[in-house]
Parts: sequence; C-alpha cells; structure tokens
Amino acid sequence: MRAVDLIQTKRDGGQLTREELAWLVQGHTAGEIPDYQMSAFLMAVHFRGMTPQETVWLTEAMMRSGEVLDLSSIPGPKIDKHSTGGVGDKVSLVLAPLVAALGVKVPMISGRGLGHTGGTLDKLEAIPGFRVNLSTEEFTRQVRDIGVAIVGQTAQLAPADRKTYALRDVTATVDSIPLIAASIMSKKLAEGIDGLVLDVKTGSGAFMRRAEDARALAKTMVDIGQGMGKQVVALITDMSQPLGRMVGNATEVVETLRALRGEGPEDLMEVTFALGAEMLRLADIERKPSAARQRLRGAIDDGRALRKFQEMVVRQGGSERALDELEQRVRQAPTKPVLAPASGFVTAIDTRQMGLAACILGAGRQKADDAVDHRVGYEALVKLGERVERGQPLVKVFYSDEAKLPEAICMIAAAYEIGEQPQPNPPLVYCSTTSQM
Amino acid sequence: MRAVDLIQTKRDGGQLTREELAWLVQGHTAGEIPDYQMSAFLMAVHFRGMTPQETVWLTEAMMRSGEVLDLSSIPGPKIDKHSTGGVGDKVSLVLAPLVAALGVKVPMISGRGLGHTGGTLDKLEAIPGFRVNLSTEEFTRQVRDIGVAIVGQTAQLAPADRKTYALRDVTATVDSIPLIAASIMSKKLAEGIDGLVLDVKTGSGAFMRRAEDARALAKTMVDIGQGMGKQVVALITDMSQPLGRMVGNATEVVETLRALRGEGPEDLMEVTFALGAEMLRLADIERKPSAARQRLRGAIDDGRALRKFQEMVVRQGGSERALDELEQRVRQAPTKPVLAPASGFVTAIDTRQMGLAACILGAGRQKADDAVDHRVGYEALVKLGERVERGQPLVKVFYSDEAKLPEAICMIAAAYEIGEQPQPNPPLVYCSTTSQM
Repeated sequence: MRAVDLIQTKRDGGQLTREELAWLVQGHTAGEIPDYQMSAFLMAVHFRGMTPQETVWLTEAMMRSGEVLDLSSIPGPKIDKHSTGGVGDKVSLVLAPLVAALGVKVPMISGRGLGHTGGTLDKLEAIPGFRVNLSTEEFTRQVRDIGVAIVGQTAQLAPADRKTYALRDVTATVDSIPLIAASIMSKKLAEGIDGLVLDVKTGSGAFMRRAEDARALAKTMVDIGQGMGKQVVALITDMSQPLGRMVGNATEVVETLRALRGEGPEDLMEVTFALGAEMLRLADIERKPSAARQRLRGAIDDGRALRKFQEMVVRQGGSERALDELEQRVRQAPTKPVLAPASGFVTAIDTRQMGLAACILGAGRQKADDAVDHRVGYEALVKLGERVERGQPLVKVFYSDEAKLPEAICMIAAAYEIGEQPQPNPPLVYCSTTSQM
Repeated sequence: MRAVDLIQTKRDGGQLTREELAWLVQGHTAGEIPDYQMSAFLMAVHFRGMTPQETVWLTEAMMRSGEVLDLSSIPGPKIDKHSTGGVGDKVSLVLAPLVAALGVKVPMISGRGLGHTGGTLDKLEAIPGFRVNLSTEEFTRQVRDIGVAIVGQTAQLAPADRKTYALRDVTATVDSIPLIAASIMSKKLAEGIDGLVLDVKTGSGAFMRRAEDARALAKTMVDIGQGMGKQVVALITDMSQPLGRMVGNATEVVETLRALRGEGPEDLMEVTFALGAEMLRLADIERKPSAARQRLRGAIDDGRALRKFQEMVVRQGGSERALDELEQRVRQAPTKPVLAPASGFVTAIDTRQMGLAACILGAGRQKADDAVDHRVGYEALVKLGERVERGQPLVKVFYSDEAKLPEAICMIAAAYEIGEQPQPNPPLVYCSTTSQM
C-alpha cells in the first residue's frame, strides 16, 4: 500500500476500505506516514467527505491506535456524556454526580477549553487540590467505588486523534463533519463505555452554528455508535447564549453547587435533565422520560446529587473546605458591571464573542500552553428576550487584572444586540437522534 | 500572516494576493512553513484551482525563490523551447542546434526522464563524455560563443519548484493545471530568456491525454508568460504514438543524427519545423512561416545544423568520434523483434505503455536515483494507420539484459491495437496559442 494512492482515491471521490484506513491511521500514528501526506489526505476528506461506513472505519482505526479501557470489572452500565462545547456549559459538573447518585456508572474523560469555549477540566481545577490526572487504575477504582470520576485524557488513549487533531488545527481541516465525528467518537469509545449521550450544541456560541450542521454531526456520531455496536443518543441543544448565568472556572463551579442545591438557572437544569433522562434510559434504570425527570429532580431535592459531587471532589484531592474557599473567593473577587448601551429587548447574543471575552479576562487559553486564571469570569445578569433599560448592568465581570477589563467589557457590550421588539427565543432542546439497537 | 489562514482562504474558494503567495512560497522554501501546511494548500488548489492572476503570482514567487539568470551580456534574442514530455521526443536535440545555426541563441535547461517519458539530459549522456552539468559561467559563455547549450537545472534555479514538486509527487497533487504551469514556467523564466516556445503534448503518451486539458495548460502557460512580460507561444502536438521511430537514449541520438543529415522521419521533422518556425518568429529572424520552414530545411540540407550539433557536443565534453562510437554501439546491439499478433491496421498505440516498456528495458527510471542503461530502447517499425500482417515485426527491441525482454515485449505487443479498418490519424500539430505582446 502507498499513502499517495489512498490520498488520490479520496481526492477523486473514491471510497477507502477498512484495511486502507487502518493502515493510514496506524502508519501516521507510528510516524511512518509523514504529516504532509496526512494533511493532504485530510484536505481531500474536507472536500470529498466520507461515507458512513468509511467514517466508522476511520473512528475504529483511531480508537484502536492506543489503549482501549476495559471497564468490564465494574458492574452495571457505564454511560458517558459528551458536549461539543460552548460558553457557560457546566452540564458535566452537575450531570455526572447527579446520574451517578441514581446508579449510573459515569467514567467521564473530559477536555480543556478550546478556542472560545470553556473546558470541564479547567473548571474542576478551580477547586483547590482537585486532580484530573488519575492513573487508569485510580480512575477505574473510583468509578467502581463511587460511580463517577471526571479526568483528563491519558497519552495512551486514541493517540491518533491527538496527532491528527494538532495537524488539522494548522492546516484548515478542522471543520469537516466526518473528521469531527471520528475525533470525538474515537476518544469516547476508547473509554470502554456501554452507552453515550451526546450534547451537540448549535447557535452563535457553538462550533456548529447552523442547526442543520449540528444535525448532520449528530447523525454521523450516532451512526458511528451504531456501526460499532454501542448505544448512542444525541440531543441538539441551544448555544445562542451562555448556558446558565456564570461563565469562567471558579464562577461555574459556584453555579454548579447552586444547581446541585436546587437553585440552578432554568436553562441549565432543563438541558441537564434532558441529557440525564437519556442516560438513565441507556442505563436501563428508568425508560420513561417523565419518571426519569422526577428521579433526577428528587436526587437534587434530597441532597444525594450534591453529596455525590462532594464525594467525587474529595476522592480527587479536593475537600468540602476547598469548595467553601472557592465560593468565598468568587464572592470576594473585584467586580465591574457592563452596562446596557440602550434600552430595549435582548434580541441576540454573539456567544462566540462572549466566550472570547472570557479568554481575554484569563479564563481560557489563547495558545495551548497558556495558564488559566481560575478566578475570573462573569455572570450574565440579562438573557435573551429580556427587557433592559439603558445603563442597567447586563453582565457582572469578575476580574483579577484591571488592564484586561476594557477590552473584555467592550467585547461583552458589543455581543449583546438590543432591539425594540422582543424576538422569539430558539428552542433549548431541538431534537434527538438515537441509534437503532 | 498565518499559513493556516491562507490555506483556509484557498479552501473556501477565495483568492490570494501577490504578497500572500510570495510569503507562502518563500516561507516554504526557507523551511519556515512546514511541508504539511504546503501539502494541504496544494490539495486545496487541486480542488479550487487558481485565477490567471494568482497563477502568475505563484510562478513569479517560485521563479524568485532562487537565482534568475542574467543573459543580457549575450547579444541577440534568447529563445528556449520546452516540451511537456512524451515517448521518442528527441525534438530538443534536433531543434536547438538547428535554430542556433540560423542565429537564435538557445540557452536550454532540460530535464531527465520522468515516469514513462524520456529526458533530454539522459539522451545526451548516451554520448560518451557529454557533460550536462555546466556552471552558470560555462553555460553563459557557451551560449555566447556558439549560440546553444543544453544543460541540467542547477540547485540555485527555482528551488521552490524542486521542493514543491517532490511534495506534490507523494501527496497526489501533481495533476493540477495551475501547479503544472507554474512549475514549468518558473524554471523556464528563471533562465533569463526573451521568448519561449512550448510543445504541449496530448494523446495516449502525454501527461495531458485529452486535447482539452492540453489546451487549458497551454493557455495557462501563455497567460503566465504574458503576465510576466515574456513572449510565449504554445503548440499542441500529437503524442498518440512515439514521435519518430526510435525510443531510448543512444537510439534517439542516432535518430537525431539522421534527422540532422536530412533523413529524419516525417512526423519528427514536421514537429521540429513547426516549433522552429515559432522560434525564428519570436527571435525576429523570420516572421513568415513558409520562409522560416525553408530556412530550417536549408540549414539541414547544407549541413549547418549537423555541424552546430557536433560543435555543441564537442564543447560539452564529447567528440565526433564519440558520436561514431555511439552509432556503432547501436548497430551492434543485440535485437529482438516484437511480432504482430494479428493482421490488420494499427488503429491505436498505448504510448504510455510503450514508454513504460522502455523503462523496463532500462532506458528510464522507476525511482529518481535509478541508473539509466543508455544502450537499450527500440525502433517502431510500424506506425499508426499502417497495415501489418500477422507475424510481421512491429518493433525492433535493442536490449542488454535478456531477463528484461519478455515483460517489455509483452507490453509493447499489448500496446498495439490492430483492427480491421484503418482509423484516421490524429493531427500532428493541433493549434497554437500566442501571447498578445
């Protein structure tokens, strides 16, 4: 086999076999196929796409490029959730302990902030002492013992994806649906899970801004799951504004604690419950949506979800005291309001811009090896469709470096569109796609 | 500027500026932009193409990546000829001394065999002692003194093209008209010539098999010439069968000598005269085609062309005795006929296959660093449209290694298509494209 022939086949609209894709991925991961051939191949895929079958084979090859976890020693269904990323998306922090409290085993491998979006690992690291780098043994033991762990990806998991992703990032081959789907699914299926619930975001703060692209990505990922014999469900949810009110790292942990105490914002809870009900269904714990929601609500009301979160924090190196400290730090942080430049209704929020403003404050990274300032972020005081008066605070910014304030405030103010007439809000949960197992 | 943004612009169908293309080519040549970004860019160009203006700018950037010869110290118009390559194409060997005998200065920088095609340098090196690697000073002096030199490309000439070409070869980005055109023209325009006659081959032995692709390439190259202020003419000529009768290296020098003695095959002479008339026109020596042909014919008839060829051979390290030796070697080489498998008319010749058969015999390379066996090759005894009887020799093979004969003979026999009815031959010279200067 020669890489140039496989590139040419794809370039000319042909289909590659399972063996060809496996050879290409293995060869590239091993350093035998150079990056310049892989990048030409990725560009050809960008133009020609991949058939559903090719996408399954690519995912399989990427998954098999490294370690595939064996969690069969843990009794019960292992179900994970993955979000394509957004602004203010702290759903994993609330959802993982919540469904674990109801008996689902959640071996969650999460990521860091990317571009304008936040990352679950960065948020958890805002808790003093919290460790996201567990060994595979620690990770497995913790899921067995308490039902939930949220950790970072090890170098052994889907190394093909790490190498390919770095290449895509600098060769303008990121936005290709089969490549995005294979990247996500290869990592998730390498976790050794039984089922997966996908939260595909759409709107101004999502990577898939248009709902039709989000739907295509959702369908592709669900097809991959089906092709590989795993139960996969995808919900398409709204990212036309930050989810909840808090954006940042410590600030989002504060909102997580509020949510687990039953004081969470409505949109955050709705998305959490919709995804949680799917997880309970895949785990065969509760198949009726309304009953599932009742059980989720119940686990919050009686404090089991909060206790599970605290248990996870303690197991991973934090403490209840560390959580108190974090809440206190956010309360004591210097703040600055962003004022409405006009009176009217909030008709649109450029959520990507909002995410970039959080990065400017220091909550995210501009480059992969930048440090994150866990203290900073903001609270959206006004959401889509709400009425504001000129001079009223739209957003409360938590900052640490005053020099960064003007640019961030300017970006946030420009991100809010204020019109005379209220616009109908987009649906929060668009639709779901389920594999037929 | 970031390479990823330029890749994305091209990927999305946008146009790049002169500065952007220059930055990309310079950065890649200097090793600052890695191959994996360049290959993604080249694949995007394969899909999106380039505007005529972008193609000029790309060519200019590639030309300027190295030394641009200054031949202004040589009096008179400096005109070169370039062929896109074929089988049996020894036109340069006949044409360069022929027009030099009539006063054109021909600073010809040629190439080696590529794929199924032969190379002028390999053919010249069949002459014992012939040196194709002259220094720039030797090359310039020789053109000034005797009006003609045929040499290989130095490392200083258009290094961007060498680097890009090697990359295209292994990333399935060779067959893109703007990239082919920029590659050829950047090298040719770096020679410091005043005018250029292009011989764009079409048919079963050409890189552009279809006449419409050959026309598109011809037009693109002529447009580049015009964009860069040089007189460029392109003829599209037939490569549906080997040009002349001899294929190989020493064998083609033998046919060159015959042609220069006035005994050349008709098709070879027709293509040589058509291109030669254009060279005389660009050099402003003779603008009327019929008068130009008469002068070309005259320079052969009175021996001036042959003497110029001998002069060049001597200047570049050969001798008249070396030429005699070469002719004798070909006469004494062991030969084997390839017999017609059926009676009828030759209706088609798979000329690419014929070229590959010459490679199998040892006349060409399978890999870039293979050695060439200068003695081997073949003579096509029967050409398109001619009648053959079963068992009659189609081709006479000159070989050195008997072990290679069966495969080569089998390929040659299979390359001839024999039918019951004669087919009309394709035109030898299709049309010409001229820049409007």
